[in-house]
Amino acid sequence: MNPRWFYSLLIISTLLSGIAHWFWPQEAARFVFASLSLLFWAALLGKATESVAHYAGERLGGFLNATFGNAAELIIAIFLVKEGLLDMVKASITGSIIGNLLLVLGLSLLFGGLKYKVQSFNPMLAGHNASLMLLSVIALFIPASFSAYLGAGEMETLSLTISGLLITGYMLWLFFSMITHKSELAHPGDRETAGEEKEEKHVGSPPGQEPDWSRRMSVFLLILSTFFVAVQSEWLVGSVEAVAHSFGWSELFVGAFVIAIIGNAAEHSAAIFLAMKNRIGAAVEIAVGSSLQIALFVAPTLVFVSLLFQKPMNLVFSGPEVVAIAVSAFIAKSISRDGSTNWFEGTLLLIVYMILGTAFFLI
Amino acid sequence: MNPRWFYSLLIISTLLSGIAHWFWPQEAARFVFASLSLLFWAALLGKATESVAHYAGERLGGFLNATFGNAAELIIAIFLVKEGLLDMVKASITGSIIGNLLLVLGLSLLFGGLKYKVQSFNPMLAGHNASLMLLSVIALFIPASFSAYLGAGEMETLSLTISGLLITGYMLWLFFSMITHKSELAHPGDRETAGEEKEEKHVGSPPGQEPDWSRRMSVFLLILSTFFVAVQSEWLVGSVEAVAHSFGWSELFVGAFVIAIIGNAAEHSAAIFLAMKNRIGAAVEIAVGSSLQIALFVAPTLVFVSLLFQKPMNLVFSGPEVVAIAVSAFIAKSISRDGSTNWFEGTLLLIVYMILGTAFFLI
Amino acid sequence: MNPRWFYSLLIISTLLSGIAHWFWPQEAARFVFASLSLLFWAALLGKATESVAHYAGERLGGFLNATFGNAAELIIAIFLVKEGLLDMVKASITGSIIGNLLLVLGLSLLFGGLKYKVQSFNPMLAGHNASLMLLSVIALFIPASFSAYLGAGEMETLSLTISGLLITGYMLWLFFSMITHKSELAHPGDRETAGEEKEEKHVGSPPGQEPDWSRRMSVFLLILSTFFVAVQSEWLVGSVEAVAHSFGWSELFVGAFVIAIIGNAAEHSAAIFLAMKNRIGAAVEIAVGSSLQIALFVAPTLVFVSLLFQKPMNLVFSGPEVVAIAVSAFIAKSISRDGSTNWFEGTLLLIVYMILGTAFFLI
Repeated sequence: MNPRWFYSLLIISTLLSGIAHWFWPQEAARFVFASLSLLFWAALLGKATESVAHYAGERLGGFLNATFGNAAELIIAIFLVKEGLLDMVKASITGSIIGNLLLVLGLSLLFGGLKYKVQSFNPMLAGHNASLMLLSVIALFIPASFSAYLGAGEMETLSLTISGLLITGYMLWLFFSMITHKSELAHPGDRETAGEEKEEKHVGSPPGQEPDWSRRMSVFLLILSTFFVAVQSEWLVGSVEAVAHSFGWSELFVGAFVIAIIGNAAEHSAAIFLAMKNRIGAAVEIAVGSSLQIALFVAPTLVFVSLLFQKPMNLVFSGPEVVAIAVSAFIAKSISRDGSTNWFEGTLLLIVYMILGTAFFLI
Repeated sequence: MNPRWFYSLLIISTLLSGIAHWFWPQEAARFVFASLSLLFWAALLGKATESVAHYAGERLGGFLNATFGNAAELIIAIFLVKEGLLDMVKASITGSIIGNLLLVLGLSLLFGGLKYKVQSFNPMLAGHNASLMLLSVIALFIPASFSAYLGAGEMETLSLTISGLLITGYMLWLFFSMITHKSELAHPGDRETAGEEKEEKHVGSPPGQEPDWSRRMSVFLLILSTFFVAVQSEWLVGSVEAVAHSFGWSELFVGAFVIAIIGNAAEHSAAIFLAMKNRIGAAVEIAVGSSLQIALFVAPTLVFVSLLFQKPMNLVFSGPEVVAIAVSAFIAKSISRDGSTNWFEGTLLLIVYMILGTAFFLI
Repeated sequence: MNPRWFYSLLIISTLLSGIAHWFWPQEAARFVFASLSLLFWAALLGKATESVAHYAGERLGGFLNATFGNAAELIIAIFLVKEGLLDMVKASITGSIIGNLLLVLGLSLLFGGLKYKVQSFNPMLAGHNASLMLLSVIALFIPASFSAYLGAGEMETLSLTISGLLITGYMLWLFFSMITHKSELAHPGDRETAGEEKEEKHVGSPPGQEPDWSRRMSVFLLILSTFFVAVQSEWLVGSVEAVAHSFGWSELFVGAFVIAIIGNAAEHSAAIFLAMKNRIGAAVEIAVGSSLQIALFVAPTLVFVSLLFQKPMNLVFSGPEVVAIAVSAFIAKSISRDGSTNWFEGTLLLIVYMILGTAFFLI
């Protein structure tokens, strides 16, 4: 998007959101403008994170991208936890994961595939990504399948243990992919274009380019956008229940499809944009990396954060949520494992997304 | 089979079926002769469809094969729907899918493997087939796993939505594999024998050869065999409940193992015959293509057809059925994905088929 | 371990176990010393089996290794069956399978990977192993998922049928891998080191080396260690319930984590030792082969053995057990299928093992 348009819309939507919040009694208007404003601030936060990461140097920067690349989702979820809307937190985690694996990946493959007959990427990371995705599915599947056998206190213990293990695993993965085996993952023999090399090193980060801002400006924008993401998240969360009620939407649908799409919109457009420039490897890496980050870092972090608010959240996801995540992981893995994509594979992912969307909407 | 024998048995079994239907009060006799006659007419219908497809030209013919290749199963199922035997319809869909993936594929690999130590086929299509098979499993798994959360009306809506999406997906797959990416799927670099090339283009169709009949004769036989398949299906369906009851067989077993085997017998023998001629690629394509056609085209079509008879059928398959389909898809995928087969892999598939058969029989 | 140390500890622990059994009223002491003694005798039994197999010649020896390689686990389980502790039998089968796939494989990959950056093995067998592992999961999953639909008698019939089919399948696999397709599995084109060739032929057996003992001595030690494994198993089983009760451990946890680790300790150390000598192919083969042997041979044999004791055991594993086995099989397959391993992949397996261990402990 043209920067001038972007900043204009950012300011206008934020002003409208403020007016709606303070003077407009209708919840739906508050919700719509907070969503719009949040969408733009989340995009700016993402860009500022990358820019700060750039100045922080390769290692620290890579670490920043890999942990705070989904900061907006994390902030929204923290406000949901604070309000005690724990089911909606889980639904938004579910929605972020399946949104990345089905919607973002599906649209990227479809639009990229409409322009280029066959698109190829280096399947080197695919194996590791598939194993990490399987770990995510397992970590969410086990509490759900043991829930009939465990009491609330035991489930709390199990959730905290799993959360600690997932964060440990994610940190070890960063250590592995950025330090001990960096060259193995970055320089496979069958690499096709040198240009892709740099991009695929960072989990969940769009390709590093020269940042638009100075070091100072980047830090300032990071702080500013974090502040506004927080404000708009609070306002959004404040009206979400009333809106869901008035539209007859289930908490599950709002969390998994409305909130998740708002929080991830910036990444969605970035991935599709890259796919249409035939950089399908980077697009796949954004979609898959982002869903791994949500499952292995954001979700377990929220379990610990929920303790601070004394609203302890466990990792017991509902049946439909576990099914949705498992199904998405399997079909995304089946499609991406050969390192070659086309428009039909994108369509397949979108069909599964539409099936899940319909099912969640009807609940 | 020798044509003379074939037509003699066709006529004799049809005569006996007529006599049984009109003069023989014993349901078991009616059932047996209707089954026999149906088996031969279904084989003739399959051959006539191919022959008409041959004259229709490559594109329209490929489309005919891919949609009406399982016409006999569709016709039997329509009569089951008309009688309101919806559970038996679902069982017969289940049985057709697992019969193709386990029995047909298993026997082909076993008999082919007893003759040839290792048989190879081009694994190019395997990736796409695996993703489509996963879509089938997902499409049947989601209604079952959401059934506890949805009312009957919502499930009807979900089933119709999924059915529409599956038929759309199947049509897009035909468009993809026959038009936009035909050459990519047909001319992979690692192809071994030129003879296999032609066969693998058509989903679920046995290899195209010069037809035995003229264009007129083909159309006439298509109409005639469709008529007789319909008549025998009606007679079969009329006696199936009484027979199941008298033998103490469950609806699930009759649908999944008796009816499914009758409807698919012709394809079964064709695939095994091809495998023994070392054309294992064509045999795999019949088995996998046929099960995809059932899951992605026949099953959703039946959901819409059931509305015409005002006996709306949803897509909620029972637990054992979903388990059977998922299990078959996973083991068939695991075995076929390397493009190399042997007798032991055939045995593995048959063992799983026997386990499922025993379990369904005992229900 | 230094042989002198080994035999000293074997004798001391056996003496202490005898003293505890006859003179020490405290169950915990009996349990600990019986466990220790059992651990050493199981290791000796394993080594004696290999040695006898060596003298028996390649075919009979391979067969011996593939069927009695897990004799210690089988003997312990038989005493559990005799005591009617059927749930603990199933838990110990579960624990042996997941212990091999997660703990043994995980530690091997981790320790091997800390010493060597990347370790490679011939992925030739991996495809067949994956299909056999899938058969194991299916064979345990189907009784569990059909249990709501079948009565006790029907489930008994189903369990016996499945057991018969699994043993048949395992025997056919031995026939396939040792006789009809021996050279195909042993001499793949992409083999890297000739040294690995010999090891990977035998299912579940550590690499054949020159035995330390004469033929006579080997047979004598086989008989002696079998006798002592039986004695210590009986003593262990006699105190296990009281100990589990006093520690507040569930039957599931004791079977799956305590007993399974005691029975498998020898293989565990052998596999890790091989991995640290960069013979990762042999280590993988021990871990995967051993879990296949448990699932396809030991478990079904126990179903038949249970009939002799008139304490019929079916194959209905509990939900958590089926989940644990399925999850382990999938992640082990995902990690081992590319034939290349590193320390992070070992860590992933260990994380899943710790998650399952915590969940089983809390039940």
